[in-house]
Amino acid sequence: MQVLNKGTPVNYKESCIIRIQPVDGDNISSLRDALRCIPDDQSCTLILEHGDYHFYSDHATELFCFVSNNSEGLKRIAVPLIGIHDLTIDGQGSRLIFHGRVCPFLIRNCTGITLKNFSVDYVRPFVSQGTIQAVDTEAVTVRMDTENPYYFDGGRIWFSGDCYHQQGCQNGKLFKRDSFLHCLEFDTHKRETAYGVQDHYKMPASGVSEIEEGLIRLATSYPTPLPQIDNTLVISHDHRDCFGVCIDESSEVTIEGVDIYHTGAMAFIAQRSDTISLLSCTVAPHPNNGRMVSSFADASHFVNCRGLIRIIGCRFENMLDDPVNVHGIYSPVCRIIDKHTIEVMNGHHEQAGIPVADRGAEIRFVDQNSLLPIAHGMVKRVESINRFTWRVEFVNALPSVIRTGDCIESLQWVPDVEIRDCVFGKNRARGPLISTAGSVKIEGNHFHHAGSAIKISGDCNDWFESGAVKDVLIRNNIFDNCGYGKWGTGIIAIDPEIRPSHLGHNAYHQNISLIENEFRTFHQELIFARSVDGLIIQGNRIEKTRDYPEKETTFEGLKTEACLHVQSDLPSC
Amino acid sequence: MQVLNKGTPVNYKESCIIRIQPVDGDNISSLRDALRCIPDDQSCTLILEHGDYHFYSDHATELFCFVSNNSEGLKRIAVPLIGIHDLTIDGQGSRLIFHGRVCPFLIRNCTGITLKNFSVDYVRPFVSQGTIQAVDTEAVTVRMDTENPYYFDGGRIWFSGDCYHQQGCQNGKLFKRDSFLHCLEFDTHKRETAYGVQDHYKMPASGVSEIEEGLIRLATSYPTPLPQIDNTLVISHDHRDCFGVCIDESSEVTIEGVDIYHTGAMAFIAQRSDTISLLSCTVAPHPNNGRMVSSFADASHFVNCRGLIRIIGCRFENMLDDPVNVHGIYSPVCRIIDKHTIEVMNGHHEQAGIPVADRGAEIRFVDQNSLLPIAHGMVKRVESINRFTWRVEFVNALPSVIRTGDCIESLQWVPDVEIRDCVFGKNRARGPLISTAGSVKIEGNHFHHAGSAIKISGDCNDWFESGAVKDVLIRNNIFDNCGYGKWGTGIIAIDPEIRPSHLGHNAYHQNISLIENEFRTFHQELIFARSVDGLIIQGNRIEKTRDYPEKETTFEGLKTEACLHVQSDLPSC
Repeated sequence: MQVLNKGTPVNYKESCIIRIQPVDGDNISSLRDALRCIPDDQSCTLILEHGDYHFYSDHATELFCFVSNNSEGLKRIAVPLIGIHDLTIDGQGSRLIFHGRVCPFLIRNCTGITLKNFSVDYVRPFVSQGTIQAVDTEAVTVRMDTENPYYFDGGRIWFSGDCYHQQGCQNGKLFKRDSFLHCLEFDTHKRETAYGVQDHYKMPASGVSEIEEGLIRLATSYPTPLPQIDNTLVISHDHRDCFGVCIDESSEVTIEGVDIYHTGAMAFIAQRSDTISLLSCTVAPHPNNGRMVSSFADASHFVNCRGLIRIIGCRFENMLDDPVNVHGIYSPVCRIIDKHTIEVMNGHHEQAGIPVADRGAEIRFVDQNSLLPIAHGMVKRVESINRFTWRVEFVNALPSVIRTGDCIESLQWVPDVEIRDCVFGKNRARGPLISTAGSVKIEGNHFHHAGSAIKISGDCNDWFESGAVKDVLIRNNIFDNCGYGKWGTGIIAIDPEIRPSHLGHNAYHQNISLIENEFRTFHQELIFARSVDGLIIQGNRIEKTRDYPEKETTFEGLKTEACLHVQSDLPSC
Repeated sequence: MQVLNKGTPVNYKESCIIRIQPVDGDNISSLRDALRCIPDDQSCTLILEHGDYHFYSDHATELFCFVSNNSEGLKRIAVPLIGIHDLTIDGQGSRLIFHGRVCPFLIRNCTGITLKNFSVDYVRPFVSQGTIQAVDTEAVTVRMDTENPYYFDGGRIWFSGDCYHQQGCQNGKLFKRDSFLHCLEFDTHKRETAYGVQDHYKMPASGVSEIEEGLIRLATSYPTPLPQIDNTLVISHDHRDCFGVCIDESSEVTIEGVDIYHTGAMAFIAQRSDTISLLSCTVAPHPNNGRMVSSFADASHFVNCRGLIRIIGCRFENMLDDPVNVHGIYSPVCRIIDKHTIEVMNGHHEQAGIPVADRGAEIRFVDQNSLLPIAHGMVKRVESINRFTWRVEFVNALPSVIRTGDCIESLQWVPDVEIRDCVFGKNRARGPLISTAGSVKIEGNHFHHAGSAIKISGDCNDWFESGAVKDVLIRNNIFDNCGYGKWGTGIIAIDPEIRPSHLGHNAYHQNISLIENEFRTFHQELIFARSVDGLIIQGNRIEKTRDYPEKETTFEGLKTEACLHVQSDLPSC
């Protein structure tokens, strides 16, 4: 490592600019040494002088992390920022190149962190892909890309290459993943999920055999439509272990001009954090290779955050899940212990370890069927029993209406959201998912998604993602040929998961405006809205295209269910 | 729960006897409530009134545990004793019955803990077994015991039953174990590993099929000797996750009259702890069922302990590994950072997270080939980089002889050991393994092991278990037909792993005496000793038996390699 400071190479702390240059081989230790030089008492800039910085897992810092909507575990972290304040890391256009199971950045208990001007990529991606050579009802044959090596052991395929199989978060020296593979077909030419496809999950790894070197046969009854020859089959063989940037219990974090070409889990995941900006960031495969997948999961995801979340001028493409998801957590009551105390669960296994509430928080109880509020309470004490189980004591006696299965929702974590001038698309699944009662503005963006372009949902029986909206403005966006896959109903899908029998007189969502957007579309399934009070749809332009084949739809224009105060200039059905 | 106290049911803290009675269903919460009542400032007895106490994993406390020679992970703990002093838990003969992936006891940062008078068992063991019905060179057919249910999914067998597959330490809701099964044949009638067998590891789970309900066929080229019809095949399909009692960073711990019928990892595992007594404890399958396996691994294991370890009047049988293992840790130097600082590794993956040394500790450097000391040093600072990597800074400059690959050994953790009046045997592998420079007395015990009865080893290239002995007395024991399996050379195996080319003039071990023991044996491979200075073998009786078939041996009586000062009245070869 070289720590340089103009003019004062030894006493670099005074001016508080720390510079490092890349070293040959692993840069983990030199970067950690530089982080040790950060003073506690003043703001600081760490400059990575322009170059290629390689990072390996072997000597990386390790921390146990519960990361919502990602996989929990002991994670190797290349750049652990823990309890640091007022730090800027300026990559000066450097390439950060990762080898194996190491997460680039963890920002935990920090304030005032800026990351800027660098790219992140992995030598060996966390998915494998190949070109489809033959297909029938019993098997798919794929010519694997040479950067995705594999081998056979114990009657099944394992994936390997460039440290991929080393030092995981499981027991043992070598990393051995699940017995199941998940397949997804991409249109090689368009570099997006193929028309009309869906996930093909849980293909046994024991059903793969090798015909000749690099040519493998997946014995599987592939769902229709059958994959097309010359399209690309992406095979997922991992969990959501290696995030790109995790922001945990932090505030005032800005990420600017950061290009993430690949990550092993979500590219940006923030939880229990306040005020986050993603400015001019990219999550997309590198333009100069043939990879179909950027992030293994969502490009950005915000769980139990507050303050303002800004996503401005970003491009998020080719993820294996959504570009943006902002939500809280519904935690079901599993036991009423006494008149002040309940036991609640983290309903979804990827919410493991995320506190369900904090001391002093205002809590809303919602009915598990209608999702509507039934009572409120103030938290006196929270005790973690295990990563899925919490004991919550309230200041006042519990309302008598509470039943097991009803959920609690903390009202402490309600962010405002601004999504502007972004390009989102070509990914598995949908565009942004918005679940927050804060002010939400989605303006000037370009959406091209296989599923819905924007989804505003809420449920407390499956994903347990909370946040009935109160103020959403969707204006001046282009919805460009969305819905070419099978994820979602409607280009705009407002679909809280309430069964028809429980849709009542009160709506779940409030005040959603769709104003002056442009729908370029090959079908007419435009807007589906359930349980909204105050839906304004005005001045949107609809341009019919022939860019994709016609598809079967369930309605045209606007479809509403149990909505109140709807003003629309679209045809309704 | 009922918390009762004779005469003073409310103000029970004053007399500091807490009584609980069993409740129907899960006793986890009531036991945890009782633990909350333990006062900080006086000794206390928690009495479990006689009865059956059931414990489930769902509401158990969860902690991340690095447990040496077991599997790391988030573990559910039924009785977490953390930072408690002067507590006795008296089970009054109760049965503690566990369901699923929950560990009975964790004793961490405690002093003065006594556990006594109860038994531990699991409804569904962590291994499965069945009776061998047919065998040929291509397959073994087994009629599975009905308490070991299984199912097929994704082309392979999975084991299930009574919560077995729920809430593991891996990601996700359901617990899914490795793709490999390990098989071991037991003699059904003798209830011990079958004559001459060895481990059959890594049988693919995809190679199992069902012939009819309960009858499965394992397609495998079983090593010779082929299994015998009507013997029992034990199938391991788990990791060392669920210990019985883990004693971590604690002192003065006594376990008395505790019968462990089954555990999912080691029954008793102690690390970095001081002064431990196991008195009149049992680790063995319940006498009234047909299970072949008690502990999934060792019955007792002591890593980096000190003070006196006493194992008195115990019976440890039918484990899948040793009855006792006492050792330190050799940590290989992987990098010399500067003249005071090195980076060292935990050499074995099951030593993950165990500190390699402490501030102020005296360190011995040993040569990786000869295992002999080459230098000493005093630790100034230790930093954990990750669970396998540590940065160790020394007070003085490092000796120039140190090379990467050499190992460090902390001299801070050197226990004395007393093993007396115990019965050990019928297990996979060996009898006690002893690696400590403390005073060791092994007297009046009965050994009946498939491998060696006592092993005194040491290596720094494979298991990295340290502790050259200096004072071992083995007197008045009965070695009853040991060596009927394939684990070890010699009934007494003193075999530090030093290659012949590196055996020098100085011996690794010192002062081992074998006095007045009785060898009842069907073969003459009695004592093998390598690199000992001071070996006394006197007054031992040898009684030839015909209890097992003759076996091929490599020597008769005593065989020594590179030993000094040997006094023996046995024939030597």
